[in-house]
Amino acid sequence: MNNGLYALDRSGQSFANYFQIEQVLYDSRSKYQKITVFDTADCGRILMLDDFFNVSTPMEAFYHEPMSHVPLGLAGRRRNVLIIGGGDFGVARHVVKHKDVEQLTLCEMDGQVLDVCREFFPDWAACEKDPRMQVRVGDGAAYLKDCPPHSLDALIIDSTDPFFNASVLVTEDFYNAAYRALQPEGVLIQIVADYYFYKKIWPDVLSVIKGHFPACRPLFFYVPFYVLGSWGLLLAGKNREQLRSEKITREYLDSIGGVETLTPEIVAGAFSLPPYIRNELKDFL
Amino acid sequence: MNNGLYALDRSGQSFANYFQIEQVLYDSRSKYQKITVFDTADCGRILMLDDFFNVSTPMEAFYHEPMSHVPLGLAGRRRNVLIIGGGDFGVARHVVKHKDVEQLTLCEMDGQVLDVCREFFPDWAACEKDPRMQVRVGDGAAYLKDCPPHSLDALIIDSTDPFFNASVLVTEDFYNAAYRALQPEGVLIQIVADYYFYKKIWPDVLSVIKGHFPACRPLFFYVPFYVLGSWGLLLAGKNREQLRSEKITREYLDSIGGVETLTPEIVAGAFSLPPYIRNELKDFL
Repeated sequence: MNNGLYALDRSGQSFANYFQIEQVLYDSRSKYQKITVFDTADCGRILMLDDFFNVSTPMEAFYHEPMSHVPLGLAGRRRNVLIIGGGDFGVARHVVKHKDVEQLTLCEMDGQVLDVCREFFPDWAACEKDPRMQVRVGDGAAYLKDCPPHSLDALIIDSTDPFFNASVLVTEDFYNAAYRALQPEGVLIQIVADYYFYKKIWPDVLSVIKGHFPACRPLFFYVPFYVLGSWGLLLAGKNREQLRSEKITREYLDSIGGVETLTPEIVAGAFSLPPYIRNELKDFL
Repeated sequence: MNNGLYALDRSGQSFANYFQIEQVLYDSRSKYQKITVFDTADCGRILMLDDFFNVSTPMEAFYHEPMSHVPLGLAGRRRNVLIIGGGDFGVARHVVKHKDVEQLTLCEMDGQVLDVCREFFPDWAACEKDPRMQVRVGDGAAYLKDCPPHSLDALIIDSTDPFFNASVLVTEDFYNAAYRALQPEGVLIQIVADYYFYKKIWPDVLSVIKGHFPACRPLFFYVPFYVLGSWGLLLAGKNREQLRSEKITREYLDSIGGVETLTPEIVAGAFSLPPYIRNELKDFL
């Protein structure tokens, strides 16, 4: 072991991802949370929020590509997209690759996250120069309630884990507003949790969303540096036909350009629940 | 943080998986390596070899099911199977689920690993009572050379990472012996490495095996607790038709019984290289 600074990203009672820090670039508390940015020798530049790993430069595509290209490939059209959270601009930079997106709104609660990411992740924040994009600082759940009915084609909820600060984003009230704001062939995607340490949250979240969206399904993608390397997303739509992985074709992915982590087969694999999860969640699907 | 014992499983220069230990059950040096077994609060019972994480109880199926059911599903028949390494009995316990396996030989170099696993992972070691199974202590590469030509249907190399002790298992000599021992529709599978910290080993291993096996391909499966949660296996056969993921059908997986982590779509996803890996390895595939 070497002297110096380390960061732990703990899960459960006995596990953590452990990073040796090369240099801390930012470490301060905003009105909402602690924001930390540091460089490492071979894990890239890392953003932590409230001492939980959020994102790092080498793994961003593994998380942001599914969060953007999957819902946009399933939505009936992709003119108007809303991102709630996503203050690192990571999802937004992939959404603006879609030429048929006419309007992208990013609604981030914490303006200080936006400023920190503009400074330390400038390649990601560069997308805000795109004239189709509008960045708002404020409560995403409140903003969603004000969206005109049937106005959104895709709603991407890129929050911190939905059991702390972001727990408002998995409530009856929130899903009600989401259903109202989405057009009939609109799609919602939301970060939930892994299925090892946080498996207990899945039945809860599925029970709530099922009361609002007739179609919903968990997806598990490989996301290095997230706990145990697999992260669960929740997809929801107004009809079941909407959520078929077959819509994510090679032609669609090629049309986006520069996709690094997805193939149609990888997406179909993420849609397919392994038997042990399917058994445990069978009453909630 | 709590007082007490911790284990680090380091990768690269700045990353480690970090486990808080509940109780150390075994920690001793054999003729070949250091062997450690400990219990944790919520990561199960863990085996480390030479201070590297090897396997734990809750994740064993994620690794052992692909290592057994994928090659056995692709081989022309599955009468005679050889495991080199695999002294924790983890792969063997899944191989004996196949009723058409007539003979399974496990050749483990380190007899002390076998004894430790018999004591501390008795559910896994129970498979050695199966009359079709033979356990040998010795050099797997030497044993392979003595196998009659065309005698093996599947060869499963479940070693430690092939850049330390097990580096002999990725040599010209070894692949030459493997090709000779496998029947014309036989299949080899081998643990290699993840594709983040150990990406440099992939071109080397692929270059060597390509000179012996006309068909070979890397597969990446989700394996929690392995570094970053994705582990790369290398599959090889004597003809390209042999290695199609379509052969791993739902009927095949159902026929095994009790498969927890695999579906045909998950296997097809593991066979599909993400664009960034495909680009980097294109000269070696």
